Amino acid sequence: MLVQAGAGTWARIRARQEDLGTRLCIGLDPVGDRLPAGTNLLEFCLRIMEATAPFACAFKPNAAFFEAEGVAGWTALLKVVGFARELGVPAILDAKRGDIGHTARQYARAAFDVLGADGLTINPYLGREAMIPFLEYNESALIFVLCATSNPFAEEVQAAGTDPLFLRVATIVKDLSASHPNVGLVVGATRPETMSAIREAAPGLPWLVPGIGPQGGDLAAVAAAAEPHSMVNTSRQVLYAGTGPRFDMAAAQAARELRDAYNAHLPDR
Amino acid sequence: MLVQAGAGTWARIRARQEDLGTRLCIGLDPVGDRLPAGTNLLEFCLRIMEATAPFACAFKPNAAFFEAEGVAGWTALLKVVGFARELGVPAILDAKRGDIGHTARQYARAAFDVLGADGLTINPYLGREAMIPFLEYNESALIFVLCATSNPFAEEVQAAGTDPLFLRVATIVKDLSASHPNVGLVVGATRPETMSAIREAAPGLPWLVPGIGPQGGDLAAVAAAAEPHSMVNTSRQVLYAGTGPRFDMAAAQAARELRDAYNAHLPDR
Repeated sequence: MLVQAGAGTWARIRARQEDLGTRLCIGLDPVGDRLPAGTNLLEFCLRIMEATAPFACAFKPNAAFFEAEGVAGWTALLKVVGFARELGVPAILDAKRGDIGHTARQYARAAFDVLGADGLTINPYLGREAMIPFLEYNESALIFVLCATSNPFAEEVQAAGTDPLFLRVATIVKDLSASHPNVGLVVGATRPETMSAIREAAPGLPWLVPGIGPQGGDLAAVAAAAEPHSMVNTSRQVLYAGTGPRFDMAAAQAARELRDAYNAHLPDR
Repeated sequence: MLVQAGAGTWARIRARQEDLGTRLCIGLDPVGDRLPAGTNLLEFCLRIMEATAPFACAFKPNAAFFEAEGVAGWTALLKVVGFARELGVPAILDAKRGDIGHTARQYARAAFDVLGADGLTINPYLGREAMIPFLEYNESALIFVLCATSNPFAEEVQAAGTDPLFLRVATIVKDLSASHPNVGLVVGATRPETMSAIREAAPGLPWLVPGIGPQGGDLAAVAAAAEPHSMVNTSRQVLYAGTGPRFDMAAAQAARELRDAYNAHLPDR
């Protein structure tokens, strides 16, 4: 699939989905005490990225795991995003940022100008004033707004009220997408009925779907209920597939198998 | 007021309130193009901190403004938090973090172990599973949960439903405070009726109140409606009070005036 120079992140992700036949987003959440012996956080990430790139329509480094290593971690994150660019794989920084206008612009600057990410996850709690600065800062970058997350007890906040909050957020994002096509949703894999309701209320948005695998999301249910071109995220299941010196090959094998398992459920394949 | 060694952040803040007669939290949101000529981000912060410490019960560096400067910014943030410790002023990292359990722990590690902050702001969108790891990570640190923010359109999300979200969040936090006394709320200054409703639903929590001054929050209304020992945050009004070489003295003067103006409205003074 031909992608024009300067095309937005979503177009690049869609092209990889078509060309490589994969819907996987590989989450990079490296934890020091789970790294294979003799490697370090940066080397671990780079080897995982190189090995799994053919199965990834995007990488998703999670900021927390790099911040936890201090200045060295931020330096590593910079290199991880740079390596994604070398590999031609869009990098979505999973940072779940959210703050008022002029502060949001500083977070956008950090993600897009300093780190060079191609996308970012943000948190909608502060309302659309805290979303728009991200959408406007870099119109080719893709902003995924947290909508319904996959964790236990998320519904206590997100499904509050007879008009559930997650639908309100989905509707706001759909509304914003009319003037800012670079916006999508984070919709967790663990509640198919929530996915269906969001898709009905706010159809056609790019989706990032965490929560398959260890968190309990069922591939068949996701393939049936999610937006057709959703990215499904996998992290630990791939990152820690192997613990020996060839951990990268084990990760690639796990990614290949998960790609195939998910594809087998997609209705139009 | 005598504070025991190892006392929690809130006890230290309360002691400064009593000893210095100030409720001000000085927000550190340094923007490159507003810095006085001949200074840099780090020097600006350190001089502001030294000059305003006598009027501050806490400092609140905002992570976004440091992240936007990349690795140099993180290094500066580390020094800012370290200097707050030297000055004996608690540092609340305003980062509005929020993520699921094992990721939340990494953000807590970054804030408390790596940066050495005394407190942190967090975002409740992911529910209590995303709050508890912060409360448990460091029981002497103070966690302020975003409840009602002061920005325009915040209500579109936070006041959704007949059972408004901000009250639901306040109730969850009050509930958590029974086993975790190191938790408080961020309650914006711009809607006194919201402050009263939160105080009624979840009384007695530590409050951080942003939104006075440029954002429109009225001092008298805040003093009347907020929890009695709330910290009121000021940033731009103090940071940019002067633009010349003695900008730090101008900031101190602005902080002194704001402290006095707020104290004049407190009922029990």
